[in-house]
Amino acid sequence: MSTEYWEEEIETAPRSKLEELQLQRLKKTINLAANSPYYKEVFSQNNITKDSIQTLSDIRKIPFTTKVDMRAHYPFGLVAGDMRNDGVRIHSSSGTTGNPTVIVHSQHDIDSWANLVARCLYMVGIRKTDVFQNSSGYGMFTGGLGFQYGAERLGCLTIPAAAGNSKRQIKFINDFKTTALHAIPSYAIRLAEILQEEGIDPQSTTLKTLVIGAEPHTDEQRRKIEQLLGVKAYNSFGMTEMNGPGVAFECQNQDGMHFWEDCYFVEIIDPETGEQLPEGEIGELVLTTLDREMMPLIRYRTRDLTRIIPGKCSCGRTHLRIDRIQGRSDDMFIIKGVNIFPMQVEKILVQFPQLGSNYLITLETVDNQDEMVVEVELSNLSSDNYIDLERIRKNITRQLKDEILVTPKVKLVKKGSLPESEGKAVRVKDRRDNKS
Amino acid sequence: MSTEYWEEEIETAPRSKLEELQLQRLKKTINLAANSPYYKEVFSQNNITKDSIQTLSDIRKIPFTTKVDMRAHYPFGLVAGDMRNDGVRIHSSSGTTGNPTVIVHSQHDIDSWANLVARCLYMVGIRKTDVFQNSSGYGMFTGGLGFQYGAERLGCLTIPAAAGNSKRQIKFINDFKTTALHAIPSYAIRLAEILQEEGIDPQSTTLKTLVIGAEPHTDEQRRKIEQLLGVKAYNSFGMTEMNGPGVAFECQNQDGMHFWEDCYFVEIIDPETGEQLPEGEIGELVLTTLDREMMPLIRYRTRDLTRIIPGKCSCGRTHLRIDRIQGRSDDMFIIKGVNIFPMQVEKILVQFPQLGSNYLITLETVDNQDEMVVEVELSNLSSDNYIDLERIRKNITRQLKDEILVTPKVKLVKKGSLPESEGKAVRVKDRRDNKS
Repeated sequence: MSTEYWEEEIETAPRSKLEELQLQRLKKTINLAANSPYYKEVFSQNNITKDSIQTLSDIRKIPFTTKVDMRAHYPFGLVAGDMRNDGVRIHSSSGTTGNPTVIVHSQHDIDSWANLVARCLYMVGIRKTDVFQNSSGYGMFTGGLGFQYGAERLGCLTIPAAAGNSKRQIKFINDFKTTALHAIPSYAIRLAEILQEEGIDPQSTTLKTLVIGAEPHTDEQRRKIEQLLGVKAYNSFGMTEMNGPGVAFECQNQDGMHFWEDCYFVEIIDPETGEQLPEGEIGELVLTTLDREMMPLIRYRTRDLTRIIPGKCSCGRTHLRIDRIQGRSDDMFIIKGVNIFPMQVEKILVQFPQLGSNYLITLETVDNQDEMVVEVELSNLSSDNYIDLERIRKNITRQLKDEILVTPKVKLVKKGSLPESEGKAVRVKDRRDNKS
Repeated sequence: MSTEYWEEEIETAPRSKLEELQLQRLKKTINLAANSPYYKEVFSQNNITKDSIQTLSDIRKIPFTTKVDMRAHYPFGLVAGDMRNDGVRIHSSSGTTGNPTVIVHSQHDIDSWANLVARCLYMVGIRKTDVFQNSSGYGMFTGGLGFQYGAERLGCLTIPAAAGNSKRQIKFINDFKTTALHAIPSYAIRLAEILQEEGIDPQSTTLKTLVIGAEPHTDEQRRKIEQLLGVKAYNSFGMTEMNGPGVAFECQNQDGMHFWEDCYFVEIIDPETGEQLPEGEIGELVLTTLDREMMPLIRYRTRDLTRIIPGKCSCGRTHLRIDRIQGRSDDMFIIKGVNIFPMQVEKILVQFPQLGSNYLITLETVDNQDEMVVEVELSNLSSDNYIDLERIRKNITRQLKDEILVTPKVKLVKKGSLPESEGKAVRVKDRRDNKS
């Protein structure tokens, strides 16, 4: 494993140093944000002045910013800098419903962003001698220009292939001897299939490193991609509101994504109460930019669920690690007073080779009591032996209880008996009399 | 009219200074190119050494480079620099048939390119306070990243809208107050139509400046775009082999496109003989890069037909101007020993409001003599009066003869009587016994 760093001093800074830098940057960020119409009002209503922030935890004095707030102040209500003179780029979310979320960047912001992406790519062993192909969509979607600028900053030979045209992607890989590829996980698998269809051994290409993100996936899928293409695949976490890619990224240990804490302040909260959760517990990720000048975002509720992985990483980087995204806080349900996310259930189920990938959680009221039923399809590997099946069922139940602290009723059902969903699977049906 | 310059010293350099710089850069370019497998062989076969180039016209000692040569040495046979260490980006043509044309850039090349695009945009009055929206496709197509990097270099607030989704383009224009837009001409007209459909006066937007290119169009179409959208529209010339956009661009006089001669050496040749043509005559544009390090191209035959506009431009820039592209050299035909391009005929026809836009040139053999017949449809504006029509016909014939030096037989036909073509119009039918 490489222990080289893109910026050793920052990446391996002692926590005390890192937190000192965070506090300094947080103060600066609050000062800048006060110039935006939105935060000016928020700060005024909450009596936030530049003296309010003396320690990092003072950030809790400031209310959360939500996507709803951003939309209500569309397009430029959160812009703090001199956009007319210093703004150089706008990105926006797709905005499938209502106004899109808009982020404005200065040259400083674009440079800082490109540097973070370069830091991520360097961390997984990509060097200036690598050939980096980006199969992201370009334009307003940040996966395109974000990786483009970052990989160029690193000095890679970049191939801005953009999305689609799989045969051309493969032609580029073969002809230009691509060594590193950015792709969403399902597309990486698709490329492997097309290689096979074209009579090319997917493991025989020059590809060494895959960067995967922008789509929820399991570790099982990652291992499948690695095995299919004979590569190492690294998880990338980012979102338009936080620039795009370059926010958090796995190191070569592949054990959680390092969050660049010199540029982002990370909180994990209970999505119901808004309270901070202890390290290790799953909750909603709340982020504050620490190095964005044109449009700082403070305590932005990402709706993404994850947890901080406790302990130090052996790679030497001191920046905290988050677990892969466990779903959206909107998917959360509460039963018997416990917050539960479907991904917690899924995480247990995928560990059983006897099970297929289709499952359904149903919440019911039985004798005035909430009950949670987990139906899961058996795979082809499962035995027909009733005793075997009952042993598995009990095992699953016990493990689920350990994970979610509620004992569900587990039903093993025949393959193909649960509804197949087109697109995003519906995992939870709430049939309770009095839905909480 | 603004007489400000992005780089005054270079843009207004006396010709002698400019040619001195060209010679110096040409020598450097030849030296660099000699490191590529392709040019190494070409130079060796033609006894070109670094002493061969003493004056600019010595460039004629070097053979032309064609698209066929580039394809034969696909992908990297023309790369002269240390691609592994210094290459940062690959662009390629779409390659609809066979291998695409590949261009590799170093960081220097990308910087030089971005600077040229910034110079173009600045020339037409675009400033850092402008909001620049790019409706080009991104990715391998150079209109996307080319304008992106150039507009950012200038300091504009860029909107990387990318191609398609017209309603979203219009939403961006309205919400982000776009002042400058890059679009292909037909798409600019389409956007005006959609604005109208949505009940928005197309002249009421914040748009001031349009950059149009990448698609052949007439001055009439440009004036239509200007009138429809209430903007100034400027022609842009570029091609992937010469980086992309930023090669030649109109100044605010809108009278020809200034070719950045500090970075490109321009020749106009007879596409049949390869001989230089005098200033003012239409021929094939042949280009040499003067500031590209990773992959210089020498005497590249673009297949584009144009002419150098004689005389000085009142904008103060000394760099030569080319006329709008008159078609492709592949479209040229020869009759009675004269090279003729369909665009020369079209240029005359569009001047008559009595004519429609559909025309057909037929070449025939009559009594062992080549004959050229021009059939053109009448428009709704034309009179039914035979005497009027005959007067127009004679007028057209005379003007065509002045332009092409051959007297064609002109036939005015009823609207709708010529075949309508889907896609690219077929303008020439060669029915001669012994096609030349």
